[in-house]
Amino acid sequence: VPRRVVFVTYPRITALDLVGPHEVFTAAAEVARRTGVEHDAYAVSIAAAEAGPVRTSRGPAIVADRSLSSLRGAIDTLVVVGGEGAHDAVHDARLVDWIRRTAPRCRRIASVCTGSFLLAAAGVLDGRRATTHWASCDRLASQFPRVRVESDPIFVEDGDVWTSAGVTAGMDLALALVEADLGREVALVTRATLCCSSSVRAGRPSSVRSSARSSPNAIRCASCSARSRSIPTATTASSCSRSASR
Amino acid sequence: VPRRVVFVTYPRITALDLVGPHEVFTAAAEVARRTGVEHDAYAVSIAAAEAGPVRTSRGPAIVADRSLSSLRGAIDTLVVVGGEGAHDAVHDARLVDWIRRTAPRCRRIASVCTGSFLLAAAGVLDGRRATTHWASCDRLASQFPRVRVESDPIFVEDGDVWTSAGVTAGMDLALALVEADLGREVALVTRATLCCSSSVRAGRPSSVRSSARSSPNAIRCASCSARSRSIPTATTASSCSRSASR
Repeated sequence: VPRRVVFVTYPRITALDLVGPHEVFTAAAEVARRTGVEHDAYAVSIAAAEAGPVRTSRGPAIVADRSLSSLRGAIDTLVVVGGEGAHDAVHDARLVDWIRRTAPRCRRIASVCTGSFLLAAAGVLDGRRATTHWASCDRLASQFPRVRVESDPIFVEDGDVWTSAGVTAGMDLALALVEADLGREVALVTRATLCCSSSVRAGRPSSVRSSARSSPNAIRCASCSARSRSIPTATTASSCSRSASR
Repeated sequence: VPRRVVFVTYPRITALDLVGPHEVFTAAAEVARRTGVEHDAYAVSIAAAEAGPVRTSRGPAIVADRSLSSLRGAIDTLVVVGGEGAHDAVHDARLVDWIRRTAPRCRRIASVCTGSFLLAAAGVLDGRRATTHWASCDRLASQFPRVRVESDPIFVEDGDVWTSAGVTAGMDLALALVEADLGREVALVTRATLCCSSSVRAGRPSSVRSSARSSPNAIRCASCSARSRSIPTATTASSCSRSASR
């Protein structure tokens, strides 16, 4: 049975908050299947008040495949995405109430960027450590004084609740969830698939290309001409040796 | 008059190839407006054979706002996105022919990831240096021997044609185009908006937060508790001081 991952959306989300982590989960499922780790790791869906196109703040409209009210049963991972619209959405009683009622049947709950405001409005972050986009940390703390806001981490894990910093940090959070579920190797290969931010923290011996070839299980980010030795989920970014060519 | 940016899509693109660079252009337009650099920097649209939802290989369906045949007149930047579907799309004579015929009325042409296969099929890359996703560089070179494939750079600029490495490298390419159009400051603030991959290459003095406050024009990535001094478009990633909190 695949882990059921549900993205929660609303009008004027940031498109990249949704698509980045979505790509991480679905790419990880492909990697896990291909490498024999797990055949059917994730079933990912996008929920909104109504199924159909969701308007994003500055990106393209993205199609939600189901309505929130149609979701029954247990959820493995609930991911509330962020965006300009989050500050209006905290006043959407139906949405906030849905999150509050649904939280107990989720194994874990996550937010990307200002999605944390919705978790806070639903009381999910009461007494917990959490983060959000750097430009919104002060606002989260003053609007929801029960939340222990941390402005430095790229993501914060407090029990079963994970919150990430701005936009692309959602991909780092998703990679950390993948690592927790499927192990470091799958997470590393997933990151390399979505190269180059995937990149690498290790040194890059000149023999990497040939040694990677002779050792097919070696995890390599060819963009960086380097082999991945450690998974950089704890920092967004790492030193990529690729440079621009002009 | 805004610069007209057109993303070219087809079935089974990689959603992130499209949404990442799309977010960069639209965020940059907001930053340029807010900072008084330019009021209306970019007009971004997504084109497909027909307007409406475009299927992606493993992401959500994304709504194309116009058909390729409806596009008339000059285009500033044409961006052909990549994905699994690119290898079928090179055999789509209508699409390839559209790119070939449209190229002369574009100021510049770009591709993300395996979008380079479509530029190559249209002859746009003949005799040019170009790159693609690391896992597809060999295939690009063998399938299109007139293309001078470079597997190391994160993106390649050859005259008016820019090609990027895999998936997230498209964001780096877009940031480089923004820098060329609107300058380094706008590109840096745009990157910080899409934090944390935005991050920073500079050191992080403990006084950064207060000094940034006293100097409102200072570009700061608060996620990294550091001030941005150099724009990291030449590498995907840079050293972000944020770490995970568990």
